[in-house]
Amino acid sequence: MASHGFWSLGGDNAGANTGSQSPSTRLGAKRRPRNFPEELDRNYVIKENVCVCCFEALLNVGEGERAAEPAAKQPPQTEAAGTCGCNKSCNCTKAAVVFSDLYSTDLLPATDGDTKTMTFLQEVVDILLAYIVESFDRETKVIDFHYPNELLQMNNWELQDEPATLDDILISCRATLKYAIKTAHPRYFNQLSTGLDMVGLAADWLTSTANTNMFTYEVAPVFVLLEYVTLKKMREIIGWPDGRGDGIFSPGGAISNMYAMLLARFKMFPEVKEKGMSSVPRLVAFTSEHSHFSIKKGAAALGIGTESVICIKADESGKMIPADLERRILEAKQKGFVPFFVSATAGTTVYGAFDPLIAISDICKKYNVWMHVDGAWGGSLLMSRRHRANSVTWNPHKMMSVPLQCSALLVREEGLMQNCNQMHACYLFQQDKHYDLSYDTGDKALQCGRHVDIFKLWLMWRAKGTIGFEAQIDKCLELSEYLYNKIKDREGYEMVFDGKPQHTNVCFWYLPPGIRYMEDKEERKKHLHKVEVYYHYSSAMRIDRY
Amino acid sequence: MASHGFWSLGGDNAGANTGSQSPSTRLGAKRRPRNFPEELDRNYVIKENVCVCCFEALLNVGEGERAAEPAAKQPPQTEAAGTCGCNKSCNCTKAAVVFSDLYSTDLLPATDGDTKTMTFLQEVVDILLAYIVESFDRETKVIDFHYPNELLQMNNWELQDEPATLDDILISCRATLKYAIKTAHPRYFNQLSTGLDMVGLAADWLTSTANTNMFTYEVAPVFVLLEYVTLKKMREIIGWPDGRGDGIFSPGGAISNMYAMLLARFKMFPEVKEKGMSSVPRLVAFTSEHSHFSIKKGAAALGIGTESVICIKADESGKMIPADLERRILEAKQKGFVPFFVSATAGTTVYGAFDPLIAISDICKKYNVWMHVDGAWGGSLLMSRRHRANSVTWNPHKMMSVPLQCSALLVREEGLMQNCNQMHACYLFQQDKHYDLSYDTGDKALQCGRHVDIFKLWLMWRAKGTIGFEAQIDKCLELSEYLYNKIKDREGYEMVFDGKPQHTNVCFWYLPPGIRYMEDKEERKKHLHKVEVYYHYSSAMRIDRY
Repeated sequence: MASHGFWSLGGDNAGANTGSQSPSTRLGAKRRPRNFPEELDRNYVIKENVCVCCFEALLNVGEGERAAEPAAKQPPQTEAAGTCGCNKSCNCTKAAVVFSDLYSTDLLPATDGDTKTMTFLQEVVDILLAYIVESFDRETKVIDFHYPNELLQMNNWELQDEPATLDDILISCRATLKYAIKTAHPRYFNQLSTGLDMVGLAADWLTSTANTNMFTYEVAPVFVLLEYVTLKKMREIIGWPDGRGDGIFSPGGAISNMYAMLLARFKMFPEVKEKGMSSVPRLVAFTSEHSHFSIKKGAAALGIGTESVICIKADESGKMIPADLERRILEAKQKGFVPFFVSATAGTTVYGAFDPLIAISDICKKYNVWMHVDGAWGGSLLMSRRHRANSVTWNPHKMMSVPLQCSALLVREEGLMQNCNQMHACYLFQQDKHYDLSYDTGDKALQCGRHVDIFKLWLMWRAKGTIGFEAQIDKCLELSEYLYNKIKDREGYEMVFDGKPQHTNVCFWYLPPGIRYMEDKEERKKHLHKVEVYYHYSSAMRIDRY
Repeated sequence: MASHGFWSLGGDNAGANTGSQSPSTRLGAKRRPRNFPEELDRNYVIKENVCVCCFEALLNVGEGERAAEPAAKQPPQTEAAGTCGCNKSCNCTKAAVVFSDLYSTDLLPATDGDTKTMTFLQEVVDILLAYIVESFDRETKVIDFHYPNELLQMNNWELQDEPATLDDILISCRATLKYAIKTAHPRYFNQLSTGLDMVGLAADWLTSTANTNMFTYEVAPVFVLLEYVTLKKMREIIGWPDGRGDGIFSPGGAISNMYAMLLARFKMFPEVKEKGMSSVPRLVAFTSEHSHFSIKKGAAALGIGTESVICIKADESGKMIPADLERRILEAKQKGFVPFFVSATAGTTVYGAFDPLIAISDICKKYNVWMHVDGAWGGSLLMSRRHRANSVTWNPHKMMSVPLQCSALLVREEGLMQNCNQMHACYLFQQDKHYDLSYDTGDKALQCGRHVDIFKLWLMWRAKGTIGFEAQIDKCLELSEYLYNKIKDREGYEMVFDGKPQHTNVCFWYLPPGIRYMEDKEERKKHLHKVEVYYHYSSAMRIDRY
C-alpha cells in the first residue's frame, strides 16, 4: 500500500474534493500575453553596465504598478526590431528561453537545466529588483489594499491538479507583490518593522539558497559558527563576563520569552522535565501590567496558567513599580506559592517604557527568583554588567531592521538549555562524531530542524559595524525626540504621559475639534478613546477612525 | 539615560570586551585583489542573452571552488582590454560601481542609492547563481569539511566595531558558501532534505523581499490568503469534509506536534489555560517507542513531563501495536490517570513505519482520546476520511522539498486554536478593523510575529500541480524500492527488518568481511552495532566508522 505513495492516495481524495478549475477559466492565463521574451526584456533588465537604457527606464518607472503588473501594460509605441523594448536603441538580445513553454520540471536538476534555471531565477530577481526600487519611492502607494473576499476574487490563487508554466509562475510572483504591503516604503509604519535592509536582504537570499538547518554542525558548519560568534558578541554587549553564557536564535520574541520561562522553571525544579507540573508546588511569575502578552501565552502553554502570572503595577510612564513587585512576591509566598520568574521589560510594546532593572534585579536576588529581561523591543539599553539578569530576549528583527525572523534568547548559565531541552535523539546527535559536539546545538532547542536566522544579522553587523548599528538606533531616537518636540505643545494634540519618551514610542492623542474644548474631562476621555490615535515612531502607527 | 540609545551604551561595553582585530590582519582583506570590477565581470555574469561567452564560462566551471573563491584565482592569461575577462571578445562593459569604495550606508534608502543597490544585489545573485549551478554538478565536492576550530581560524568571522566595505561583504558571502554544505548536490543525503527546488527557492527570495510577517491580514494580505487556500487544500487531501477545520504553519514539526498536544489538553480541560496543570488530574500521552523525540520534548515543555508519555510497543517493522496501546490506556485509567493524547506516526524517523491508523483511531474514539497523527515525515499517505484524527502534522519541507522551514499543523475542530492560544493583545488585534477579522490569524499562534512560510509551498504547488507532487513522491518511493531490491540479497548486507519498506527508509546493516561469517549471532550483533550503517533513501545517510 505504501508503495503507491501518499500523494497517489491523497491525490485521489483531493481530486474528488476539489472542484479544480479548467485552465481556460484562469484569470492569469487569460491576461497573459504570449510574446513573453519581449515582455521579459522590456520590463526587467538588470545591471546598468549591460543595458543602461533599460536600467534607467526601470529606475524612472514611478507609476507604482508597472513592476507588479507588466502583463497589463501595452507595448511601448516606439518599439523597434532589434531593441529590447526600452524605447532606445540598445544591444540587448532577446531571451532564448520562452517561459510559456517551460515547467518547473525543466529546471535543475533536469538535464541541461542550467541555462533555463539561471534565466528563470534571473527573471525572478529582476521582478524583485524592480519591486525594491519601487518600494523605496515615496511617490508610490504603500499598499494596494483590498478586503479579503475581494482579493480572493481578484486573482486565481487556487491550487490546481495540473502544473503551471514558468510564465504563470512569474505572473503569480508579480501578482503577489502587486497586492503585498511595501515594507521598505518610507511611509510604511508598523509595530515591528524598521524597513528593509539591503545587506540583510542579500543575506536572506543566500540563506534560502544554502537551504539548510541548524540542528547539527555537519549540516550547517558556517552558520553554526556564526551563531556562536554572534551570540557571544551579544552577551558581551549585555555585559556578562567574557561574553560567557548560552543562547539560541528562536522563531520570535514570544518563543524566546517562553524559553526563558521554561529555563527558569527547570532551574528551580529540574524534576519538572520528567514529572511535570504535578510534581512541583504552585509556581507564580511576575511581570508589569504593560508587558507583552507573550508572557501570559507562555505561561498558558507551559502548564503554569495565566492566573499564575501576576501583573505588577506600572507608574504613569509605564515602568514597573518595584515596591509593588516586592509586595506581590511576599503575598504569593504567604499563600504558599513559589515565585520563580520575573520578566522585566526593556521597552514596553505601547509606551516604550523601561522597567527599573537594577531595583528589580535586587529584588530577584533577594528572593532567589529568575530575572528575565524582555528586551525584544527595547534591546539591551540598560543592561550593564551590574545587572544580573538570568536571561534576555533580544529581537534584531525589530529596531535593528534585520529581516524577519531574527530573535535571540541569551542565557547567563551555561549548559542549562541543553539539560532542560535535550532528548538525546540518537539518529541525529550521535555521540561518536569526530568533531566537538558542543557545536551540535540542535538539542538545546524546542525545535528539531531550525531555520537559519543568523546569517542576515551577522552579515549586517559586518556591513554596519557595531558603530553603524549604534548610529542607526541613535538616529531613530533623535527622530522620535524631534517628533515629541514638534507635537507636545501643538494645538489639538495631547501626550499620553508627561515627560520625554524613554524609547522611540511617542504616544499621543489627537483631539478632533469637536472634543478639543470640552470642559467635562470624563466625557472628553470617552470620546477620545474612540479616536485611538497611537503613534510609535519608526516602528508603529495606528490611526483609527473617529 | 534612554535617550543615549542602547547601542551607545552597549557599544561602550562591547568595545571594552572584544579585542577586535585591525583590518590589516584580516584574511579576507589580504586576499582580495583591488581590481574588483574586473573580477566582478569575470566570475559572475548573468543571462546568456547578455554575454553568452561569460555565461558559458560559468556553466563550464567544473572546478568546485571557483565560484566560492574567485579572489584566489589568477586573471586569465588571454585577457584583453575591452573584454570582461571571459576569455573571448564580447560586448560587456565594466561595472561602474566599485564596491571597495562603498558601504551599506550607500545603498537604499540612501539618496541616489538605486543603481548601487541594484548592482550590489545583482552581484550577490550572481554569486548565488554560480553556487547553484555548481551545487548540481555531481563532480564537485558536497562539502569542504573542516572541524569547528579549524573553520573558526580559516577566516575572520569576528564582528567588528567598524563597518566593512561592500566588497568585504561580497567576500563574506563567497566564504560562507565555500564552506557550506551543498544541500542541492545530487550526492547530499540527510535526514531531512530532498534537494533544492528552484521554484521554492525563487519563492523564498520573494518572501525575503516582501519581509513581512503573518500576524495580521493588514501586513500580509496575500500571504494570509495563500495560507488559507493552502491549509484548506491540505485538509481536503487529508480527507476532512469540505476541507473544513483549522491549522497553522509553524516553525517545524516539533513545534507542530507540541501545538497538537497543547490543543488536546485544552480541548479536554479548557481551564488549564488559566489555572495551569495544578487544576487538572495527571494527564498521560501515548506514542510508539519509534516515534519522534519531539513528543517527549513537547510534554516536558508543556508541564506534562516526559514520564507521562507512555511508549507503546512496536512490531518488528516499527509499527505501533494497537493491542498494547489499549492495554496501556486501561492501565493508566486504573491508576487514576487521564489519557488525553495519542500520537500515531505516519512514517517513523528511522524505519519509515506507518502506525495502523484505523485501529488506533478506533481505540481513541472508544476512550475519547485526542488522536494526533505525526505525519511530519510520512505525510498523509494513509489518512482517508474514514480516519478520525483530530490533528495532523505535515512537513512540506521534507519529502516535498520545500525550502526550510515549512511545517503545518492541521486541526479538525474549528475555533479551538484561537480559543486555546488567544491573548487578545489590543495593540495588534483591534476589534474595530474594517475587514473580516478571521483573517487576523496571529492570535492562534504561540508566536507573535510569525515568519512567512507559505509562499514557497504555494508557488511550488502551482508549478508542479498536485499531480507533480504525486509524481515526485512516487519517484522517491520507486527509487527506494529499487535500492531495496538491489541490496536485499547482496553479499555483505543484511536488512534491519524483513519485508518491503513502508516508506523511503531502506534500513540495512553493512557486514564487514571480519564479522560476515561469524557463527555466534550475539557476538556478531555486538560488532554490528559498532558499524552503524543506516540508509534512508532520498532523505538520510549515515555511514559511521567500523
